[in-house]
Amino acid sequence: MTIKAGIIGGTGYTGVELLRLLAGHPQVSLQVITSRGEAGRRVDERFPNLRGHVGLRFQEPTPAAFSGCDVVFSATPNGVAMGYARELLDAGKRMIDLAADFRLRDAAVFEHWYGMPHACPELLAEAVYGLPEVNREALRAARLVANPGCYPTAVQLGFLPLLESGLVDTTGLIADCKSGVSGAGRGAQVANLLAECADSFKAYAVGGHRHRPEIEQGLEIAAGVAVDLVFVPHLVPMIRGIHATLYGQLTREPRDGELQSLFEARFADEPFVDVLPPGSHPETRSVRGSNVCRLAVHRPGDGSRVVVLAVEDNLVKGAAGQAVQNMNLMFGIEETAGLTLVPLSP
Amino acid sequence: MTIKAGIIGGTGYTGVELLRLLAGHPQVSLQVITSRGEAGRRVDERFPNLRGHVGLRFQEPTPAAFSGCDVVFSATPNGVAMGYARELLDAGKRMIDLAADFRLRDAAVFEHWYGMPHACPELLAEAVYGLPEVNREALRAARLVANPGCYPTAVQLGFLPLLESGLVDTTGLIADCKSGVSGAGRGAQVANLLAECADSFKAYAVGGHRHRPEIEQGLEIAAGVAVDLVFVPHLVPMIRGIHATLYGQLTREPRDGELQSLFEARFADEPFVDVLPPGSHPETRSVRGSNVCRLAVHRPGDGSRVVVLAVEDNLVKGAAGQAVQNMNLMFGIEETAGLTLVPLSP
Amino acid sequence: MTIKAGIIGGTGYTGVELLRLLAGHPQVSLQVITSRGEAGRRVDERFPNLRGHVGLRFQEPTPAAFSGCDVVFSATPNGVAMGYARELLDAGKRMIDLAADFRLRDAAVFEHWYGMPHACPELLAEAVYGLPEVNREALRAARLVANPGCYPTAVQLGFLPLLESGLVDTTGLIADCKSGVSGAGRGAQVANLLAECADSFKAYAVGGHRHRPEIEQGLEIAAGVAVDLVFVPHLVPMIRGIHATLYGQLTREPRDGELQSLFEARFADEPFVDVLPPGSHPETRSVRGSNVCRLAVHRPGDGSRVVVLAVEDNLVKGAAGQAVQNMNLMFGIEETAGLTLVPLSP
Amino acid sequence: MTIKAGIIGGTGYTGVELLRLLAGHPQVSLQVITSRGEAGRRVDERFPNLRGHVGLRFQEPTPAAFSGCDVVFSATPNGVAMGYARELLDAGKRMIDLAADFRLRDAAVFEHWYGMPHACPELLAEAVYGLPEVNREALRAARLVANPGCYPTAVQLGFLPLLESGLVDTTGLIADCKSGVSGAGRGAQVANLLAECADSFKAYAVGGHRHRPEIEQGLEIAAGVAVDLVFVPHLVPMIRGIHATLYGQLTREPRDGELQSLFEARFADEPFVDVLPPGSHPETRSVRGSNVCRLAVHRPGDGSRVVVLAVEDNLVKGAAGQAVQNMNLMFGIEETAGLTLVPLSP
Repeated sequence: MTIKAGIIGGTGYTGVELLRLLAGHPQVSLQVITSRGEAGRRVDERFPNLRGHVGLRFQEPTPAAFSGCDVVFSATPNGVAMGYARELLDAGKRMIDLAADFRLRDAAVFEHWYGMPHACPELLAEAVYGLPEVNREALRAARLVANPGCYPTAVQLGFLPLLESGLVDTTGLIADCKSGVSGAGRGAQVANLLAECADSFKAYAVGGHRHRPEIEQGLEIAAGVAVDLVFVPHLVPMIRGIHATLYGQLTREPRDGELQSLFEARFADEPFVDVLPPGSHPETRSVRGSNVCRLAVHRPGDGSRVVVLAVEDNLVKGAAGQAVQNMNLMFGIEETAGLTLVPLSP
Repeated sequence: MTIKAGIIGGTGYTGVELLRLLAGHPQVSLQVITSRGEAGRRVDERFPNLRGHVGLRFQEPTPAAFSGCDVVFSATPNGVAMGYARELLDAGKRMIDLAADFRLRDAAVFEHWYGMPHACPELLAEAVYGLPEVNREALRAARLVANPGCYPTAVQLGFLPLLESGLVDTTGLIADCKSGVSGAGRGAQVANLLAECADSFKAYAVGGHRHRPEIEQGLEIAAGVAVDLVFVPHLVPMIRGIHATLYGQLTREPRDGELQSLFEARFADEPFVDVLPPGSHPETRSVRGSNVCRLAVHRPGDGSRVVVLAVEDNLVKGAAGQAVQNMNLMFGIEETAGLTLVPLSP
Repeated sequence: MTIKAGIIGGTGYTGVELLRLLAGHPQVSLQVITSRGEAGRRVDERFPNLRGHVGLRFQEPTPAAFSGCDVVFSATPNGVAMGYARELLDAGKRMIDLAADFRLRDAAVFEHWYGMPHACPELLAEAVYGLPEVNREALRAARLVANPGCYPTAVQLGFLPLLESGLVDTTGLIADCKSGVSGAGRGAQVANLLAECADSFKAYAVGGHRHRPEIEQGLEIAAGVAVDLVFVPHLVPMIRGIHATLYGQLTREPRDGELQSLFEARFADEPFVDVLPPGSHPETRSVRGSNVCRLAVHRPGDGSRVVVLAVEDNLVKGAAGQAVQNMNLMFGIEETAGLTLVPLSP
Repeated sequence: MTIKAGIIGGTGYTGVELLRLLAGHPQVSLQVITSRGEAGRRVDERFPNLRGHVGLRFQEPTPAAFSGCDVVFSATPNGVAMGYARELLDAGKRMIDLAADFRLRDAAVFEHWYGMPHACPELLAEAVYGLPEVNREALRAARLVANPGCYPTAVQLGFLPLLESGLVDTTGLIADCKSGVSGAGRGAQVANLLAECADSFKAYAVGGHRHRPEIEQGLEIAAGVAVDLVFVPHLVPMIRGIHATLYGQLTREPRDGELQSLFEARFADEPFVDVLPPGSHPETRSVRGSNVCRLAVHRPGDGSRVVVLAVEDNLVKGAAGQAVQNMNLMFGIEETAGLTLVPLSP
């Protein structure tokens, strides 16, 4: 089986990462990639790492451009995919949005955090949130997938076992997260210049970040009740990688090894979640370029609190890789197809 | 007034940073610097940044080497300073230890965390913990100063106003800390090679870190009761800088602006603590090379939790700069002498 | 004596570096700093490293703004200073331009490389090229100083002894130069994002760079004849620093130690040029934050070619520091005033 | 066909990179990997990026360990492979040495530069220098391959077309090379700590580097006469990547486009050499993780000198990838097998 794939907006980091993954996918034929600003230009002229791997030119972004596709990935800024979704679905295509247009169930919450009206709120109920570790069966049948954000993927995977089992208090959750600079996108912003953010470290958006409602929505489904989360993102002077340090108050004294077993059992069949041995400290580089999320669970001083460490590559499991994993599920092929790359280390 | 200063063990990062600061100090005459391994070699041959500023050669580390000094800084690994302290004090010198030998009041705690017997436990009661924001008056009279650790400085300064005022619950404190690699010292360790830690991020020592008892000791003095702290340090791919993200549960609803006012009032007269305007996110580079600790206090979503962000240069306010500040206090000169350097940014 | 100083355009890297240096200069009173985009805003709000050191607000850039100044620094993009020069000089001010407006003697060459007509070509003959190691006496009397470019400073200092002594062939010079990213300025450009240029290395502008005519002009004055130079700049994933690797063909067999002696003698009285011992390899970090240029001269395999290694901080000796050195000379104060900072290392 | 492969000394960077590549190679079965210091330990415990990809444990390094192998890679320090070569070849194995033991044809030159006697000089004549772009046919039949050094690969590929065609003077060659820190290996050395080499740049070994005789040997074969090369390596604060900037004096005026055509023709059939369009500046990140060497040729100012820019991943085309390419040739399988990875960018 060969899946014919197209990409809307392929000039950002998630777009070029999709190109990297799809170019090496054994069952995908890349049909089209659009960019308003780069139409006509060879893709590998803009991204020389793709020389010899991608022969396409950027095209103007029109729905007609995707007529030959089975699936369309949208790797655009927030608010673009929802302008394409209805037409593509009606034409029988499947769609995976890597931005936030379909992540939040409640259009009002979307509009509050993203500052724009939703173009097709009627699709929100149909859209499947693309976290395979939670929604695998629904994803197999999905026409429209909302690919999770980078922070939400790491935070949800790390908290899921604890919330599903009721082992942590839902009112005192903390997610202290750290991201490489590619998470801010490829836009020309002074704050993300090397001379501004190298050899430095800072928190940002402590007052409120768009990923918090998305994370809370997922955690509440897992917990079955509302949760109270403090989410503090930080910028790390590195290119790729997210490290989530998650804190929770235990609701009871766990048995010896119970926390470790809980995590191992929860993810035993997951191809892309790796629970490390007790006492481990995952490094973001251990997943560089791969779709794996590695987790370690700690209980410092055998006290009342649990600490989960989660790492992922923000552009792979946090974006393009998870999108490919979702595509694999949607088309009934091997879930790991095209995603067996060994992380690049050092 | 000219203070004659000596340094025991000047080849690590805190040693060379002391040299940088003392070389530019208007009231210090650098007399001697020792190093077993480098004795006889010019200091500026090892550290070319000091060419034209430091003309000394390393000497063998003997107590006699310091006979001409008024004050001796010990910038050695843990366990060395306590071998010199009695003799230096008896000879009428003052001593500032930048390692951990005199930081913990309880010799048993020291021995547990540092894995060695204490050589002069009788001096622990006399030693003054060198955090001027807490112990300024005691420092003016001190003969022996235990210069605080890098993490403990940032964490204590950030939590102090909250604990002293009783505004946070003492049982649920979290210090999620991030340090540049120079914090690990200048020893040749594979884990700190650029090819191992650049473009990556990790937590370490989640199970227990030597700075936790030191931090708890200070927080308990501030709170007047025992505290329960979870402390998770992380390694940032940068040279200098510490960022502490501190979390606490508020004990009551604060008034509008109360948190900001609390921090501003607490540090109003402190020359090296800078409380940023509401909504700020301090960057470590904003204090690079300087003795300032910058703080910002947040209450995300006007909720029940407070988040404090604290940055410092781990080698300055977290080590050598604070040692010089302590020296200034001990000798009755201007507290800021030699420490008015403008941070280097970008 | 107190020099009243103003800055046109203080929001780029050379501007904020000037602020850092002038704020710590014992004989300067900073009067005014302008910025069209930031007028009214506190300087230290934009640059938090200056908190406690610079209390000014940005002002609108009008010539009247500088009425109280003795000297005006222009830290703007190319082409701005020449619009201010005539009026400021007529008002009795002195001016130091950190951009390229007055560096090239020939207005036609300026217009070719910078793509704009020159606004006051009649001032080109009066302007003094601000390389104190060549033009010290002229600088003492100068009203208008053209502060050299960052690459030209390192390349000229490295080649000067060889060209002045006739020891290298003028037809085969090569300057393979490497610069940190701050050299590209603080403008928002995709190519200078951390995610684009960290963990990577590239050459640029091999076909032609604006600094080549400036370098050639200086080298030709030193050599007394035309020179043929190949200049290849490269981008290094670091914030500050330039490393020039210079190659020349020897015109005769030098005597033992002659090259080293030549360099030492040429710069014996220079406060900011440091000739390293034979066999040395200067690191850019050894001059970070300082006005020093360090040089080493090599003759690999005792062959027919000479290799000079030169390092400087591109924002200090390559820009703002050299401008302050020039100001010191123009006003007859100690040449090193405000410039005795110890480089920050690590 | 499945090739059974073993690795001597798999704990350095070239070893772990071999593991990454061989783990994903469709026609290789990894049999054994040895390490004296790590024997018994799981490989993926030391290198967590290999979790799920490599299930082996390190074994003691004995020749018997390789009895089941068709080919043995030696990824050890210099001087180790020559102790294994005779026995392995006699046992019918093929061997690829990634160190320098068999690179130099002249044992005396080896002994001069590597400071040890050669253990089996009689094998030097048989060993094939593993640069497929030069020795492809000989490699197909080789029993013993000397895999080129990282710098020599980039420098030779860049100079080959010019020397083979006689377009450059052989007496004035310059290779100004820049390497990421992984090129220095995984040994614990202070100079390679992040805090020592990040945010800095330096040259090293200007007086003489072991790769110069290896490069000269290759260039002389290409030129047919002796060459005079100045080789200056530099350390770049990045993990992977080599950039060679090569300078030569043209022996005659080239025709329009002749240089570009020369390079394109020379490498037209090479799967791993990519000649970029005129005016290009290759970035090291464009080959990160891949076996490609990208080249660009320039003639600045249409003058008498040619500048070649060459980039490679020092651990892939400069080490492990080239070794796999050689293995593919030796065993008659597709030359690109296991090496079609898309470079990771950003």
